[in-house]
Amino acid sequence: MDFAFDSLTEELRGRLLRFMDECVHPAEPAFEEQVRMSGWGVPPLVEDLKDEARKRGLWNLFLPGDHGAGLTNLQYAPLAEIMGRSPHLAPVATNCAAPDTGNMEVLSMFGSEWQRQEWLRPLLDGEIRSAFAMTEPDVASSDATNIATSIVRDGDEYVINGRKWFISGAMNPTCKIFIVMGKTDPEAPKHRQQSMVLVPRDTPGMHIKRGMSVFGYDDADHGGHAEIVFEDVRVPVDNLIGEEGGGFAIAQARLGPGRIHHCMRLIGMAERAVELMCRRALARTTFGKPIARQGVVQDWIAESRVRIEQLRLLVLKTAWLMDTVGNQGAHTEIQAIKISTPIAVEWILDKAIQVHGAGGVSQDFPLAALWAGARSLRLADGPDEVHKRSLAYRELKQYM
Amino acid sequence: MDFAFDSLTEELRGRLLRFMDECVHPAEPAFEEQVRMSGWGVPPLVEDLKDEARKRGLWNLFLPGDHGAGLTNLQYAPLAEIMGRSPHLAPVATNCAAPDTGNMEVLSMFGSEWQRQEWLRPLLDGEIRSAFAMTEPDVASSDATNIATSIVRDGDEYVINGRKWFISGAMNPTCKIFIVMGKTDPEAPKHRQQSMVLVPRDTPGMHIKRGMSVFGYDDADHGGHAEIVFEDVRVPVDNLIGEEGGGFAIAQARLGPGRIHHCMRLIGMAERAVELMCRRALARTTFGKPIARQGVVQDWIAESRVRIEQLRLLVLKTAWLMDTVGNQGAHTEIQAIKISTPIAVEWILDKAIQVHGAGGVSQDFPLAALWAGARSLRLADGPDEVHKRSLAYRELKQYM
Amino acid sequence: MDFAFDSLTEELRGRLLRFMDECVHPAEPAFEEQVRMSGWGVPPLVEDLKDEARKRGLWNLFLPGDHGAGLTNLQYAPLAEIMGRSPHLAPVATNCAAPDTGNMEVLSMFGSEWQRQEWLRPLLDGEIRSAFAMTEPDVASSDATNIATSIVRDGDEYVINGRKWFISGAMNPTCKIFIVMGKTDPEAPKHRQQSMVLVPRDTPGMHIKRGMSVFGYDDADHGGHAEIVFEDVRVPVDNLIGEEGGGFAIAQARLGPGRIHHCMRLIGMAERAVELMCRRALARTTFGKPIARQGVVQDWIAESRVRIEQLRLLVLKTAWLMDTVGNQGAHTEIQAIKISTPIAVEWILDKAIQVHGAGGVSQDFPLAALWAGARSLRLADGPDEVHKRSLAYRELKQYM
Amino acid sequence: MDFAFDSLTEELRGRLLRFMDECVHPAEPAFEEQVRMSGWGVPPLVEDLKDEARKRGLWNLFLPGDHGAGLTNLQYAPLAEIMGRSPHLAPVATNCAAPDTGNMEVLSMFGSEWQRQEWLRPLLDGEIRSAFAMTEPDVASSDATNIATSIVRDGDEYVINGRKWFISGAMNPTCKIFIVMGKTDPEAPKHRQQSMVLVPRDTPGMHIKRGMSVFGYDDADHGGHAEIVFEDVRVPVDNLIGEEGGGFAIAQARLGPGRIHHCMRLIGMAERAVELMCRRALARTTFGKPIARQGVVQDWIAESRVRIEQLRLLVLKTAWLMDTVGNQGAHTEIQAIKISTPIAVEWILDKAIQVHGAGGVSQDFPLAALWAGARSLRLADGPDEVHKRSLAYRELKQYM
Repeated sequence: MDFAFDSLTEELRGRLLRFMDECVHPAEPAFEEQVRMSGWGVPPLVEDLKDEARKRGLWNLFLPGDHGAGLTNLQYAPLAEIMGRSPHLAPVATNCAAPDTGNMEVLSMFGSEWQRQEWLRPLLDGEIRSAFAMTEPDVASSDATNIATSIVRDGDEYVINGRKWFISGAMNPTCKIFIVMGKTDPEAPKHRQQSMVLVPRDTPGMHIKRGMSVFGYDDADHGGHAEIVFEDVRVPVDNLIGEEGGGFAIAQARLGPGRIHHCMRLIGMAERAVELMCRRALARTTFGKPIARQGVVQDWIAESRVRIEQLRLLVLKTAWLMDTVGNQGAHTEIQAIKISTPIAVEWILDKAIQVHGAGGVSQDFPLAALWAGARSLRLADGPDEVHKRSLAYRELKQYM
Repeated sequence: MDFAFDSLTEELRGRLLRFMDECVHPAEPAFEEQVRMSGWGVPPLVEDLKDEARKRGLWNLFLPGDHGAGLTNLQYAPLAEIMGRSPHLAPVATNCAAPDTGNMEVLSMFGSEWQRQEWLRPLLDGEIRSAFAMTEPDVASSDATNIATSIVRDGDEYVINGRKWFISGAMNPTCKIFIVMGKTDPEAPKHRQQSMVLVPRDTPGMHIKRGMSVFGYDDADHGGHAEIVFEDVRVPVDNLIGEEGGGFAIAQARLGPGRIHHCMRLIGMAERAVELMCRRALARTTFGKPIARQGVVQDWIAESRVRIEQLRLLVLKTAWLMDTVGNQGAHTEIQAIKISTPIAVEWILDKAIQVHGAGGVSQDFPLAALWAGARSLRLADGPDEVHKRSLAYRELKQYM
Repeated sequence: MDFAFDSLTEELRGRLLRFMDECVHPAEPAFEEQVRMSGWGVPPLVEDLKDEARKRGLWNLFLPGDHGAGLTNLQYAPLAEIMGRSPHLAPVATNCAAPDTGNMEVLSMFGSEWQRQEWLRPLLDGEIRSAFAMTEPDVASSDATNIATSIVRDGDEYVINGRKWFISGAMNPTCKIFIVMGKTDPEAPKHRQQSMVLVPRDTPGMHIKRGMSVFGYDDADHGGHAEIVFEDVRVPVDNLIGEEGGGFAIAQARLGPGRIHHCMRLIGMAERAVELMCRRALARTTFGKPIARQGVVQDWIAESRVRIEQLRLLVLKTAWLMDTVGNQGAHTEIQAIKISTPIAVEWILDKAIQVHGAGGVSQDFPLAALWAGARSLRLADGPDEVHKRSLAYRELKQYM
Repeated sequence: MDFAFDSLTEELRGRLLRFMDECVHPAEPAFEEQVRMSGWGVPPLVEDLKDEARKRGLWNLFLPGDHGAGLTNLQYAPLAEIMGRSPHLAPVATNCAAPDTGNMEVLSMFGSEWQRQEWLRPLLDGEIRSAFAMTEPDVASSDATNIATSIVRDGDEYVINGRKWFISGAMNPTCKIFIVMGKTDPEAPKHRQQSMVLVPRDTPGMHIKRGMSVFGYDDADHGGHAEIVFEDVRVPVDNLIGEEGGGFAIAQARLGPGRIHHCMRLIGMAERAVELMCRRALARTTFGKPIARQGVVQDWIAESRVRIEQLRLLVLKTAWLMDTVGNQGAHTEIQAIKISTPIAVEWILDKAIQVHGAGGVSQDFPLAALWAGARSLRLADGPDEVHKRSLAYRELKQYM
């Protein structure tokens, strides 16, 4: 047992921290400004940051294997945490932003040669963005077997009909390709009914209706969260990812690394919140003493530190398990980090907001927007409660 | 001891409930639509609702004494709860919306004959709106003695310099009058330094800079929350409310009824959240059964009911105390409802959101916006923590 | 709506408070000493207190109707709170102690003339004590239909077989009569299978095996919590309370007032805890200042006050509902106080303990023992969770 | 970074688990029985277990260096967790029980040759027990500078006067030696005033007055928690441990490993609680289905698992830090585990109790007693709140 990072990780952490200090954090105010101006889509300065990141060897760090940087989950996790300190800017600057990351993994693992050439290549190069269309407004999508969108084969084509929402990134015009999950065979066994197909942006019948807001935020800077209607959308059968009936399995495979990334970024957000909370508490005075000397604020700071330390270790161990025994062997831990991280980070952000007074809920500090992100991760990939039930069931099974 | 409402209250509750069912709730979708279209300011359909409310004798219910409906706090409280079920529409429709309510109380109690004629009259008639400018970005404003805006007498005028923010309603062009708190005498005893003056909207030197967002919401429909800079703003000395040095006392007097209103509206919001949570839980099915049969969801519903019942009684008792022994005698209870209500209602809204899945955080349900309102009330009038310290101090004092 | 106590209540409160100050609190140290010496059963000084209480007209206050003081639930509730400040002494001194109170109610309402003469009379006179034997070790007794003890008619007798535990008061030799619940007809509809019979202490076949401990406490001073085995115990058919099959209904009727009593006593315990917490916090100094100046301790004190005020109002309203619309009409509220009071008071006691340091968990302060009492009320009458499910179901039913 | 135990640890874990299964758990019922019979002191069967543990090479595992098994903190930690599954039996059986462990560390590190011969030797051999007398009833002892017991040199002797309480193990007649902390120089700098001296059991003037109870438990099986009065107690100057004024430093050195041990045992207790909770939930049926199918119970089980995984990792990392960078370098983490572990394990035990119904609070399951142990660790070594303040201060200091 050894709690030190290996030397490659340390080297990359140093390099990434320098990139954050020299390029990312200084760009944040201009980024905010450009976001206010630029409608749906990524503000222009991001392209400069991407060039810089590529130059510095900080590109596609998330992707294991030959297509990417080849890091293990355990090596990448602490880098994701660092990116989380500027979650709207650092991941996209390094081509490590969701949902592209998961989509690239899917194409890398399950895509055909042609699909990789056509879509994975430009994604890896940061030339286009992508979306992942699974959640539906009309059913509780945490139960993937509820998914109702139909994908029917008709000759050499699949015909897609259905309605999706909260499809992140879709409002961004550079989002060129959608991975769409639907049912190809409603009569098959429960977990063999679903398939995934690639749908290019301008395919007739695909209507991007509107952006869904998340606590008042439209998240326009990374393409928002769209509602999309599929009306007799036709794609060639070559656009099927993997095999018919393989959709559920692909979705599962996509989840593991995504959880690590989300959770480590959340931890980075929490670290930033603690820093802001401390700085503000030291800078402001009420009733004759700095807020930092209020016992309740000290309690929040201590609790935040204690929770962060625990969360980080659990996520790192989960990454290590995925590397050593695979996603199946890390099943409990992958659920455990989903259950524990968003809600704890939400709590920390709430306290940081409270220390900032009215400013905390406003656009003048990143806290409220980070909070909305953390809060929605208690729902993304299914509400925490679904995962708790499943985890409890495995715990109970040992004694049945 | 008697827990039944008196007959006047019951009569008004019935009348208001009918107004909600027949006019307010049906207007909500169109209101949402108009809000999206209409920039800063109240959507047009509100004027129709105001006419209707006036016709039905549901006007200025909040205001005791001759200027208003003459209800006691205990009689008005349950009406405020009902309005809280549609908090963006019902209060403004009945001319019972903050911050006008508090401002009208101030003018009614402390305003000169001229001030009442000039400003109270059109406010009571629902012709104009008003704002209350106290909170400042540069100091922790929960400690009112921190307020730094200066109000300096110069001949027959007061000259105001300072910066305020989160001035609700100010972006609304019909908001014609601002009550501004500042320091007239920094050398006076701590609670005699402040004064309040009336500043009409177009006074030179008053710059309304921007709207502050609250968790991504701009609250444009009721005029947002503005940052305002006062640069050598001059008003006649007749615009002083009450006497020089009386600002702190007026601010305190303004607080009590405002808390009752806020808290009862929050309880109305909580009731709406429980209803939505129940309906959604019954309507959606996961893993083979309605969400309503999930034990954790049942636990949330039960907890919500139990908390609401307790909160309501505490607020009603506080209203009764204010009516019978005055604000001073109700001091502990006024703090207690501020401490307990927003955080409990926030919790209930959070659970209702969770039951709604991704929809819960979006614009398709009122829950996320209500949540942002409840959350910011943990900060408005000073963070809860300040009030807890003060309440604890009085508790401890009994044993000193 | 009126939050003031009526004049009779105020008069009795004054009288009871004087009794507490002049007699009960001063007797506490000697009581503790006698408890340590006297094995199972009530320490001798209690008889003196009983005489005094009777003299002062503070006797059987809990019992409505002609047999007792004739108070309403709303009138008695604030008296129960006062007794709760010394929960091991004041209730027994005033003949208002559980489980006698519930048993007297049962006999008063459902007992035959003969049963009242034989058992209610000496109970009302404080000559004997009684027990209520329902909970069983072998089944989850929160579901009363699980009760397995059999009561079989055999000629003019009932024959009882079964095992009960946590039968409070049973180890006390002056506990002369047991109300035993069991099944007379396992074939009847679910809620008509149970009956209650009276079993005198020395009936052959009734074996009082041992005292169950509650977090290390044996509660010897009020007769502990016994495990009892019934082996072919025979009682005359005249010992049946009410009718065969009526046991479930009697149990339900017994619950309502008992909840009010328990909850108000808990609130009295909480008030005592707050007082002790304040006094200790003022008296002890760490790191250069009194503990009372620690922000976290102030937060606990404020939270305690705020919670107590809410709980008390809810219990009082429940009492008022029981008086005005009956137990059925107060069903939700009776569950609500069971759900909310023990856990909140447990929290307050926990904080008071924490302020007392190691002393808080010891016999030198009443806090740890009070805590154990509050904690076990989260289980008594069925775990809170069962009541939450039932309350949620009624809430949901409105929308089905 | 590597989350696997090393091979020595794995070997010892296997050996210890076998010892638990073959010897410790089977002895628990007889141990309980002997505890009920045997007054203050360790029940006889423990000696047999000690012999067996020695034979199996499971002896003094806690002690690093030549005097003990020579394990690192990281190697010992998982063994302490296993012992925690039977915390009243396994630690004492393996001579790894507090407070002997800390006392042996102190003697091993700071004791003179003579002191080691006289006291460390028989402690290592399990022939005698020891106590650590620091906490005082009259001052808030979490602030060690409050300690008031005086140790005054008089010729070749030290004269001790003062009062201590909660001196664990002291009622056990085999507890032969006491390490007593007091002030030798009240004029010295704050952290140089204290010294530690060895006081043998039968030294004249040392009065062991009574056992303090912990939530009703006397913990007689390991010698209880005594109140002790020192009245002109005289010991030779050779009984001083280390140097005069070194007491505070020794106390600090003693804390680190003790925290690891306590926390890992708590985690073992939590694991046992989860197992009992699962087994009970599967075995009991209410309202037609096993309790294990209640959503709220599943939620508790999942939360318990998630919390345990996080706690364990944090404690293990702390052990690793102590091994690699020393106690000072692990300061934040040592506080973090003290803050997080007892309260989380208390929560888990509370839920396990709730699942057990009335049985859970009684002597028929180990849960209530384990709960009392966990609860008191929120106070032992100073209340959590003191440690949180200190941890927050270090966090804030980075930004000062």
